[in-house]
Amino acid sequence: MTITITAFERSPDGGKGLARDTRVRWALEEAGQPYEVRLVPHQAMKEPEHLRLHPFGQIPTYEEGDLVLFESGAIIFHIASHHAGLLPDDANARARAITWMFAALNSVEPPILELVIVRFVEGDKPWSKERLPLVADRIRHRLGQLSVRLGDADWLDGAFSAGDLMMVSVLLRVRPSGILDEFPNLAAYVARGEARPAYKRAFAAQLAVNAC
Amino acid sequence: MTITITAFERSPDGGKGLARDTRVRWALEEAGQPYEVRLVPHQAMKEPEHLRLHPFGQIPTYEEGDLVLFESGAIIFHIASHHAGLLPDDANARARAITWMFAALNSVEPPILELVIVRFVEGDKPWSKERLPLVADRIRHRLGQLSVRLGDADWLDGAFSAGDLMMVSVLLRVRPSGILDEFPNLAAYVARGEARPAYKRAFAAQLAVNAC
Repeated sequence: MTITITAFERSPDGGKGLARDTRVRWALEEAGQPYEVRLVPHQAMKEPEHLRLHPFGQIPTYEEGDLVLFESGAIIFHIASHHAGLLPDDANARARAITWMFAALNSVEPPILELVIVRFVEGDKPWSKERLPLVADRIRHRLGQLSVRLGDADWLDGAFSAGDLMMVSVLLRVRPSGILDEFPNLAAYVARGEARPAYKRAFAAQLAVNAC
Repeated sequence: MTITITAFERSPDGGKGLARDTRVRWALEEAGQPYEVRLVPHQAMKEPEHLRLHPFGQIPTYEEGDLVLFESGAIIFHIASHHAGLLPDDANARARAITWMFAALNSVEPPILELVIVRFVEGDKPWSKERLPLVADRIRHRLGQLSVRLGDADWLDGAFSAGDLMMVSVLLRVRPSGILDEFPNLAAYVARGEARPAYKRAFAAQLAVNAC
């Protein structure tokens, strides 16, 4: 069955690969699954036709026959569950890899997304400048804990997994701020993710949409 | 094998059931699984012994034989995967239920947690009072979308699932603000969750720890 995902017709990041379709493209590339992309214009995101697929009016969505999914975490978990290459076979190792998926999305990404709020959503507010270092320190606190756990390992728990795919994707969002580079082992971890051929193909595919 | 979870020795909410061990207790009760609880004193949360279980120094954790998990989302998914009652058998329905778990944690909870930041973490800052309505409006925006999707259904996708368990748990955190009650169908949805015998047992168990 054909897999169809949605992506921004024009990504707000101009092709830096930070929109969440890149994560899904990466997972599909790791799993060796071909896919089609339907580009959604900005003005169509909150239209009934798209809200039927994604109740929060965002991208990506995932369609495969009768199945419609949203939330990149759920989509990547679905891909990882149905194809080899993203989750270990051993039951306990698999549960731990899934734990890192949730950790990336619920413990690491929220403080990072606050940076978007303080800089852009509330960028014109009088408190923006004074709040920025507080937000940055909360990110540092979390990345410091993650850095300790990763130590000098290549990946978070044994071989590369969907947990690493998600964590690297989340950390990429904080790199432009300079905070990632304060943690050399995390910066190297992200670079290892980017060096994977599947990531490179995913990045190139989203860039091809946004660079034209 | 014995299941052991961790919880606060004294929950910051004084037993209102908003700490994340309640979600895990609820899932274990729905699955009919007995469990033990190890209470972690506040000063021990950042000690090496606890950080070995939870790299971010939080609760809950989950131990079962050799398996150690953290992140309530991952723990509940693990319980739901291994016992009946929390995920449908049909593959597509199962993928959609898992989608709602991720949606609760990555799309609905982050704006709600901003309320904790503006009120408590930054409660003494000069911008706190002026920021509060902005944060509240972002929560309203997301709950409005969720309210439309739920409509007059009892649960988010067919029968009660781990997706509803997670969404109800996340929405409970916003109820004290009064914002939940602006969406009557969501307030009724949360009340349906609380009325489940498994939730009542989970709530009572955490209250017994914190009310003494």
